[in-house]
Amino acid sequence: MIVALAGGVGGARLARGLIDVLTRNELAIAVNTGDDFEHLGLHISPDLDTVMYTLAGINDPVQGWGIAGETWNFMQALEQVGGETWFRLGDRDLATHVERTLRLRANESLSAVTQHLCSRLGVQHRVMPMSDDSVRTILHTRTGPLAFQDYFVRNRAEPAVTHIEFAGAEYATMSPGLLDALDDPALEAVIICPSNPYLSIAPILAVPQMRAALEQRRVPTIAVSPIVGGRALKGPAAKIMRELGYEPSALTVAQFYRGLIDALVLDRSDQSLSRPIEELGIRPVVTDTVMHDHRMQTCLARSVIETARSLRARVKR
Amino acid sequence: MIVALAGGVGGARLARGLIDVLTRNELAIAVNTGDDFEHLGLHISPDLDTVMYTLAGINDPVQGWGIAGETWNFMQALEQVGGETWFRLGDRDLATHVERTLRLRANESLSAVTQHLCSRLGVQHRVMPMSDDSVRTILHTRTGPLAFQDYFVRNRAEPAVTHIEFAGAEYATMSPGLLDALDDPALEAVIICPSNPYLSIAPILAVPQMRAALEQRRVPTIAVSPIVGGRALKGPAAKIMRELGYEPSALTVAQFYRGLIDALVLDRSDQSLSRPIEELGIRPVVTDTVMHDHRMQTCLARSVIETARSLRARVKR
Repeated sequence: MIVALAGGVGGARLARGLIDVLTRNELAIAVNTGDDFEHLGLHISPDLDTVMYTLAGINDPVQGWGIAGETWNFMQALEQVGGETWFRLGDRDLATHVERTLRLRANESLSAVTQHLCSRLGVQHRVMPMSDDSVRTILHTRTGPLAFQDYFVRNRAEPAVTHIEFAGAEYATMSPGLLDALDDPALEAVIICPSNPYLSIAPILAVPQMRAALEQRRVPTIAVSPIVGGRALKGPAAKIMRELGYEPSALTVAQFYRGLIDALVLDRSDQSLSRPIEELGIRPVVTDTVMHDHRMQTCLARSVIETARSLRARVKR
Repeated sequence: MIVALAGGVGGARLARGLIDVLTRNELAIAVNTGDDFEHLGLHISPDLDTVMYTLAGINDPVQGWGIAGETWNFMQALEQVGGETWFRLGDRDLATHVERTLRLRANESLSAVTQHLCSRLGVQHRVMPMSDDSVRTILHTRTGPLAFQDYFVRNRAEPAVTHIEFAGAEYATMSPGLLDALDDPALEAVIICPSNPYLSIAPILAVPQMRAALEQRRVPTIAVSPIVGGRALKGPAAKIMRELGYEPSALTVAQFYRGLIDALVLDRSDQSLSRPIEELGIRPVVTDTVMHDHRMQTCLARSVIETARSLRARVKR
């Protein structure tokens, strides 16, 4: 049994590969909720939706969020009545947010709502929020603090980041499903998907139980670097690394996860970083990490799982 | 200056005629809010929307509610995630409810929100709720009490009505715009549009200030009968009349409004009812009342206004 920690697009892509290789019982995907926010009176969980839509096979692969073949009539009409349109919500996508919001208001947990939505969309594997408690990513920038979506969407990730806060994380507990999965005697490994370490994985690690679980791990943890050839495959990870004073590289990713991971999967183009990564006590695993298509998602998933199992065999021996 | 009281479709049609004949300053349209309800976490005001969309020229004339050329992708997606779909909300229409709900939650009054929405949709004339307070129409039926939309949409107006309650009406005050309009020294007449007397006009009259204003009126009040040839042009008015023990006819409409109106406009096909209506102390005005098209809306509006002015002249003399 494997637990995967995921953010948005990169995480969703590897998750798409993992479900091809692992059965429902063999996988639990815990998703970042630090990007969640209240907008137009609706509770929006962007990363949960990206993972859910991707696993349901209805995600829009071009824009990287939302539903394929989406229509925008609500948005157009909202603009006409003077509503806020900086965060774009498609007509179909909107149903997810309306139903989620109603159920949360009726005191269902985010875990229960996520399970319901996934089941209705035909997602077989377990997808769960990292926590049912509110954790909110706040980016402190040279122009002041910004809530995640204000930074990411409204300001197109342009302001220079000085530090990142996860408001509420210290009081948050892991979601029951994640807690169960990590406690499962059948647990073989934890996989940290190639999501933004600062914006997508850090909020998950900011939940004290989660960080402790990785620090005191009894099974290997393997991260996949989202930085390839010094660049982020998607989003502002490389830019933020630079702003925080680090060189954007898989080595910086390794340093970020030091003490929490046993292996880092990095791209062939970063092979030269194997030695310095090894010197951090982290096993470098070099393979093709860029997931251009579904086949490559499955391949990468297979490599990561093989790595996990070989590390586990070594630990057991 | 004229105040018109309106419900949904029938009211909206006459209102559409009135705006052709009267300038913005010469007309205030007060709309029933007894049908308002909370659905999917949204505040929905069906009659305000029907009037607003009709005056904006974007109403769907075929189904009688909503926006012409509407799309239903939200609704389809909501069905897929297991949401409630008995009350159909189009993708464009949804923007109205989302924006209204947000503004009400930010403590704007329903009057202010309505004014904002109308202005954004290009409606020049004043449209206002009857009240900013909550009044909820409840239909007591042989199978128990039903909230308006449960009766009207979910149960397709099928249960037999025993009596109708307007919860909250006794504590409701007229909206400031309606109060101002009725107090305006330029007020010439009040027009009761051909809406369902029991379901659309009665909730307005249930606001104590409104009933008092009509009982103590200093200007003529003219109603237009929504019953033509013993049948309702739209909706369950005739059916409810029968269930409440009355014969569906323009005479029953006259009896319902007795003491509150000076004239009743009825269709040529009901000319034979002129005498009994006159015996109630109400002046019968016979004309073509069925508004098949825009031209007939304007014609009826003109007849009603002429009647109002002739009655006013008689009062003044």
